[in-house]
Amino acid sequence: MNHSIVRFILLKVLAIEGACMMLPVLVSLIYKEPQGIPYLIVAVCAVAVGLIGSRKMPEKTSFYSKEGLIIVGLSWVLLTIVGALPFCITREIPSYIDCIFETASGFTTTGSTILTDVEALSHTSLFWRSFTHWIGGMGVLVFLLAILPMVGGSSINIMKAESPGPSVGKLVPKIRQTAGILYKIYLGMTIIEIILLKIFGMPTFDAITLTFGTAGTGGFGVLNAGIAPYPLACQITITIFMFLFGVNFSLYYLLLIGKVRDFFKSEELRWYFLIVVGATALITWNIAPMFENIGTALHQASFHVSSIITTTGYSIGNFELWPGLSKTILVVLMFIGACAGSTGGGLKVSRIVLSFKILKNEVRKMLYPNRVKIIKMDGHVVPNDTINGIKAYVVIFFILYAISFIIVSFDNNDFTTNFTAVATTINNIGPGLSKVGPVENFSQFSIVSKLVLTMDMLIGRLEIFPMLAIFAPMAWRKNKFAN
Amino acid sequence: MNHSIVRFILLKVLAIEGACMMLPVLVSLIYKEPQGIPYLIVAVCAVAVGLIGSRKMPEKTSFYSKEGLIIVGLSWVLLTIVGALPFCITREIPSYIDCIFETASGFTTTGSTILTDVEALSHTSLFWRSFTHWIGGMGVLVFLLAILPMVGGSSINIMKAESPGPSVGKLVPKIRQTAGILYKIYLGMTIIEIILLKIFGMPTFDAITLTFGTAGTGGFGVLNAGIAPYPLACQITITIFMFLFGVNFSLYYLLLIGKVRDFFKSEELRWYFLIVVGATALITWNIAPMFENIGTALHQASFHVSSIITTTGYSIGNFELWPGLSKTILVVLMFIGACAGSTGGGLKVSRIVLSFKILKNEVRKMLYPNRVKIIKMDGHVVPNDTINGIKAYVVIFFILYAISFIIVSFDNNDFTTNFTAVATTINNIGPGLSKVGPVENFSQFSIVSKLVLTMDMLIGRLEIFPMLAIFAPMAWRKNKFAN
Repeated sequence: MNHSIVRFILLKVLAIEGACMMLPVLVSLIYKEPQGIPYLIVAVCAVAVGLIGSRKMPEKTSFYSKEGLIIVGLSWVLLTIVGALPFCITREIPSYIDCIFETASGFTTTGSTILTDVEALSHTSLFWRSFTHWIGGMGVLVFLLAILPMVGGSSINIMKAESPGPSVGKLVPKIRQTAGILYKIYLGMTIIEIILLKIFGMPTFDAITLTFGTAGTGGFGVLNAGIAPYPLACQITITIFMFLFGVNFSLYYLLLIGKVRDFFKSEELRWYFLIVVGATALITWNIAPMFENIGTALHQASFHVSSIITTTGYSIGNFELWPGLSKTILVVLMFIGACAGSTGGGLKVSRIVLSFKILKNEVRKMLYPNRVKIIKMDGHVVPNDTINGIKAYVVIFFILYAISFIIVSFDNNDFTTNFTAVATTINNIGPGLSKVGPVENFSQFSIVSKLVLTMDMLIGRLEIFPMLAIFAPMAWRKNKFAN
Repeated sequence: MNHSIVRFILLKVLAIEGACMMLPVLVSLIYKEPQGIPYLIVAVCAVAVGLIGSRKMPEKTSFYSKEGLIIVGLSWVLLTIVGALPFCITREIPSYIDCIFETASGFTTTGSTILTDVEALSHTSLFWRSFTHWIGGMGVLVFLLAILPMVGGSSINIMKAESPGPSVGKLVPKIRQTAGILYKIYLGMTIIEIILLKIFGMPTFDAITLTFGTAGTGGFGVLNAGIAPYPLACQITITIFMFLFGVNFSLYYLLLIGKVRDFFKSEELRWYFLIVVGATALITWNIAPMFENIGTALHQASFHVSSIITTTGYSIGNFELWPGLSKTILVVLMFIGACAGSTGGGLKVSRIVLSFKILKNEVRKMLYPNRVKIIKMDGHVVPNDTINGIKAYVVIFFILYAISFIIVSFDNNDFTTNFTAVATTINNIGPGLSKVGPVENFSQFSIVSKLVLTMDMLIGRLEIFPMLAIFAPMAWRKNKFAN
């Protein structure tokens, strides 16, 4: 393994995280909060260590998929460990395990919290907490690829490992430009949402932090009551933007370069839209008797459908009190997730669509074993490798799901709590049902469960393999063969 | 499609079912119950129609996997529809939908019931109900293959479609002999269990019916209190026999021909044993505080672990009252299921073991894309087709699971009820948790849910494809090409 390149990139990541941490320091100056000092210390240390350590470019900058996976896996662990420090030093979250959980929940854009009282946090920490969503949404390494020219042709391996979805396409021939375009679209949409929320009457601090949560499809808020206290227009804006951030960013690029027809041709987008509309209609019908008028029911349904399918996790009401059908639909949406190439988590709509095509194809194979079978998506033949990759992904997903489920249930909570606690973390959503419902939190879990759920968040965000790679003994064994 | 062979075999199946129905008629004579008359009428009609219709062998007896799937799928639907008639005619189960549910539950060896009072049934109907487990356990078409010489070389397609597990091996070169051997082992073990239960003090009627339930890993009992009222020795006997009927029958054949080492070499068997022992130990530790001594806890744990993993579904206590961890383990066991080639349901231990190997293999693929990867089981390389088949099976399983789950939740029951109702039917177990727990039943569900759960039972027993085949429009389209 090329250790020097792994070390080099990890140190760069550390420097970037330090630089990001200067923003909450700025916030602490505005609000005159002493909590800014620990942030400053950690930030300066991180930048110093990162920059000094990575002064010299390694001699060999080429690497293979193994290094790509290891770099991504370790980067995210590093981000979490360092990002958690200020919470602990400010004593705002006393237990370091809880800090780790909260920070992982931030970077992975999960939004599950161990805090019982969010409003007790300083503005500085609230800002950092939400900012981790924004950083994690598009990915730190994608950012690194956008600003650093160094990692040459093999950097696609990093991009593949950090970007969600069954396959990663380069928008333009150069990875660096592709990463840059993605980040520009991300930044542009973020700014538009902040402005709209301001216009509709949200305070600036809330508008910025909640937009971070929407953009990264994270879900951390700044009020204990979630999004409910804000004006209706703000809630609707958030509904729409959650939906928009769940769309594949490559499609926005198509729009930007004028390929409008290609945009609407995307099968994944069409299914995503249909699922959202269908689920909203069903839930509206199902919960209508609970509200004074159908409009309120529609608002509640559309907000939560958008929030859950994009794996954001914001709430404007306690859906724990909804009838069984609506809750079931929400749980199913948790697993479907958003589009590939968006900031959302879950299995991704394209994997679900392809799974249905696999179903049809397997029936055809059984009926007519000797005929040639192909699977198409957006009019193109999907390569067999991608198909087998998706099948394997689903199998492995459910294995890890079952293992986590068993370990978490040692806490002796009820079935629904255990089931949805794992579902909501591995799919990067935020709230679950029962004891982890939208008005509850994760503070009750044992240390072991918190660690498992933290792992699940990272597994979900990085789509399994980088996390398995850093724990696989075979990845660290001395190579008998050059790869 | 070769319609004449499909029709021919369906009529043979009908005749066999009619012949089987003469056994409850015999029971009615012993107990002098008038309910025997409807059984006699249905039996005579079935035998007459079946035999007269299939007098003439079709000219073309060869067929392909398509016909194999369709034959198996339709046979099981036919078995269910006809087998349900006597319950309805005797008015013991007034609604025909309920009769269908109960009969499908019998043949698929699920053991879920819509009856609130089992003891109200006549001996005749109780016998038929349990006998369907025994018939369904090994499979009707396997029986047909054993007694009829007609279906030539292509009959492996039927055997494949009806036998559970990722791959079917012929024990001896001829299918007919293989089927015969399997049925002889099945019959032999059944007789031994009946004798043992008699020796340990169970009434003859109960010993026979409960053995049918154990042998088919079904789970229908004859008392409302399940297995709890019987002597301890009987309960332990049932624990052991449930475990034994969950083992691949091909392994018993190896034992019979003296290949003891090959028997113990089976990876699936070793994992099956380890999972049972591990789960029993964990649950014993977890429930120990609920019982007066550790022995009782061990007895409760081993009985229910054996009952759930083999998908039998008998109970000697209400595990609904156990702590969350134990219930979680039971739910996980529901999905694991018994060994391939046994009478048990679920995903099967070999599929789970291979899924873990797939996980390891995929990590290796990600780390070293250019190296050759193989997966081994019992020391042999597993063909890629089998691996891809397993991956596809798991994907399709969870798609069907999710669809059923959504439809059933329209009944507005709680999450755990919906989740485990589907789990227990699609895995052919019997009881679930919450409103479908071991002391509850399925009578509360709507007609739509009952039909969906009935479909799930058939999907689970026939391992998906025969049921999908009979509903796939492409199977019924006129062939453009001979296959």
